[in-house]
Amino acid sequence: MNWKLAARAAKMNPSVLREILKVTERPGIISLAGGLPSPKTFPIQAFADACAEVLHNDGQAALQYAASEGYAPLRQAVADMLPWNVDPAQVLITTGSQQGLDLVAKVLIDPGSKVLVETPTYLGALQAFGPMEPNPVSVASDDEGVIVEDLVAKAKDGRFIYLLPNFQNPTGRTMTEARRAAVSVAAAAAGLPIVEDNPYGELWFDEAPPLPLTARNPEGCIYLGSFSKVLAPGLRLGFLVAPKAIFPKLLQAKQAVDLHTPIFTQRMVSAVMKDNFLERHVPTIRALYKRQRDAMMAALTREMAGLDVKFNAPKGGMFLWARLPEGIDTVALLPKAVERNVAFVPGAPFYADQGDPRTLRLSFVTASVEEIDTAISALALTLREELALLGERRLAPEPV
Amino acid sequence: MNWKLAARAAKMNPSVLREILKVTERPGIISLAGGLPSPKTFPIQAFADACAEVLHNDGQAALQYAASEGYAPLRQAVADMLPWNVDPAQVLITTGSQQGLDLVAKVLIDPGSKVLVETPTYLGALQAFGPMEPNPVSVASDDEGVIVEDLVAKAKDGRFIYLLPNFQNPTGRTMTEARRAAVSVAAAAAGLPIVEDNPYGELWFDEAPPLPLTARNPEGCIYLGSFSKVLAPGLRLGFLVAPKAIFPKLLQAKQAVDLHTPIFTQRMVSAVMKDNFLERHVPTIRALYKRQRDAMMAALTREMAGLDVKFNAPKGGMFLWARLPEGIDTVALLPKAVERNVAFVPGAPFYADQGDPRTLRLSFVTASVEEIDTAISALALTLREELALLGERRLAPEPV
Repeated sequence: MNWKLAARAAKMNPSVLREILKVTERPGIISLAGGLPSPKTFPIQAFADACAEVLHNDGQAALQYAASEGYAPLRQAVADMLPWNVDPAQVLITTGSQQGLDLVAKVLIDPGSKVLVETPTYLGALQAFGPMEPNPVSVASDDEGVIVEDLVAKAKDGRFIYLLPNFQNPTGRTMTEARRAAVSVAAAAAGLPIVEDNPYGELWFDEAPPLPLTARNPEGCIYLGSFSKVLAPGLRLGFLVAPKAIFPKLLQAKQAVDLHTPIFTQRMVSAVMKDNFLERHVPTIRALYKRQRDAMMAALTREMAGLDVKFNAPKGGMFLWARLPEGIDTVALLPKAVERNVAFVPGAPFYADQGDPRTLRLSFVTASVEEIDTAISALALTLREELALLGERRLAPEPV
Repeated sequence: MNWKLAARAAKMNPSVLREILKVTERPGIISLAGGLPSPKTFPIQAFADACAEVLHNDGQAALQYAASEGYAPLRQAVADMLPWNVDPAQVLITTGSQQGLDLVAKVLIDPGSKVLVETPTYLGALQAFGPMEPNPVSVASDDEGVIVEDLVAKAKDGRFIYLLPNFQNPTGRTMTEARRAAVSVAAAAAGLPIVEDNPYGELWFDEAPPLPLTARNPEGCIYLGSFSKVLAPGLRLGFLVAPKAIFPKLLQAKQAVDLHTPIFTQRMVSAVMKDNFLERHVPTIRALYKRQRDAMMAALTREMAGLDVKFNAPKGGMFLWARLPEGIDTVALLPKAVERNVAFVPGAPFYADQGDPRTLRLSFVTASVEEIDTAISALALTLREELALLGERRLAPEPV
């Protein structure tokens, strides 16, 4: 049978993360790899009450086809939740914020279109954009986010820049107020739209992050948000906010893709969110994740002492970013770590261009404090062994 | 701000159906337009029990991220349900079967690719394929489905043919056993893959339809199915079955689009389907829809007497197809019908090429028997008035 694939299909590859996650499902492995929220934070009873309520009060409507834009009260709740003036008519409910990336790609990317991204950037975004065959261009980035001068130098003919300013995946870094102000002005001056992804913004530890980029220039930005990290990812509920100039196209793309996001889960979440539930619930997630970040940083400081391992101090979110000593390749290190029952994600796949082989991403949210201690200790042991091997190889006589 | 749209976005248009459905939401309108299953058939109590059970037994797993392929027991249930030998590893759970169409388009359609479709065909498929910029080619069709000679004549270089053999949307027609056998052989001989869409197959009235095309040549077909018509559409749960040759690409596309279909609703449906629930539930849907089809045919026979209106006798599904007398354009007729509080869908948008302006689609499943009687009576009155106007225009002197 003559199955001829589209050219774009040849460029689709199995997710590196996905293949890694398969390994980490082995019993006994402590995984610091996946970006899985702690299931302890899922408000199961609140969902059970919401299901019963929705099916009792509005069962038929909750199970029928519904509007592509999303459930009106949920669109209103999203608009109310955001820290700038949002018209609910600009809110599109999506099947997870990943779908928002797919819709953005369909509507804004032609084959070869320049799309600017951070260094490194969210792998899932690269995968969502990929089938529309963009030319992703890495903008140099430091601990505060993308570097404005490089953004300006690369902005010409860019379709948009994709930014994740809060507790970024994979680095955990946060764009400072000063950097946001500068990026916002520079992008507007260059006529470069911003696609702002903010799945982790509510997960701050000591203080809320600065205002979103979209709040500073709503007509120049598409904003993506998610309920995955504040309620539960298994419902696949996210949203986007888009200016009137392109909202209708995103809506048409959405309609063609899946008609609408499941209305039952939209109504569930709408019911759960009543009476300011998130205001009581999210602080419990912040407190848990902060304790676990503290535990991971303490363990790294203790276990990696003397090993020339650099790591950052995320102010929120789920991830910490580390850089191992010269000569280490984290892709090669991973199977050795897995032998010691700990898993992480190598950093290189998160780069749109040449990845830094010494980097890795560690999630501090899924494992418990005790598991984090055990895992970082095992990781340090693996690293010490690898460094010893490297040292032996360096001392060995060169082959003639 | 420089929002430059992708070329494909310019080709996206608001769904004609969608705009029509908006009008029909006006209170007092009896809509025979939308393809909405009767909400009376939604098993609300079974869903309520399933939600409680899933959240009680597996709450954390039901709310966490999950595998892109879908929930294993649901994939197994789908495989078990289908009338040919299906490996669950070939089943991909989708966010409604509409998403299956989007994934197929991404993986199989290049700009300009020839895609064969029926005359007329499902509008939602044209919309799902559209962003990948195919060249859709209408294969001549009669009451039994596509005409084999025309299929063969047009098969060369076709990426696939999209077919909806059971109780087709929009025509309600069913492909006969003889036609299926001939189409299957002809497509295989031409090396032309088949994308078979079967959302309505379980909704048969007197006897089950012949075997799916996919059952006759699984390696040459992608099969799309749905829980929307046998349980409820608001959950957006569908599936596809694909040969091993292309399953991995469809899975990669799925992963990039929304990571996975909501696992909570997958587990809900899996719980509902236990103990052969569908075997008890689906016959009640069939009986209801058959009564309503009978009512619609009786009303049409009675009310349209003497008006040269042709309509078919669907053997299942949700839709009946009608053709009005010479000179009538159903797009122009619709607002006049809406004035008389009845809505239908004009047939022309369902054609990939030139539509037949005299055709229309009537749904017999959403409205009650009494509403169907009232609506068909109002539609006949609208048509009589329109014919009278046409007659007057014909008798009026030509403008000089």
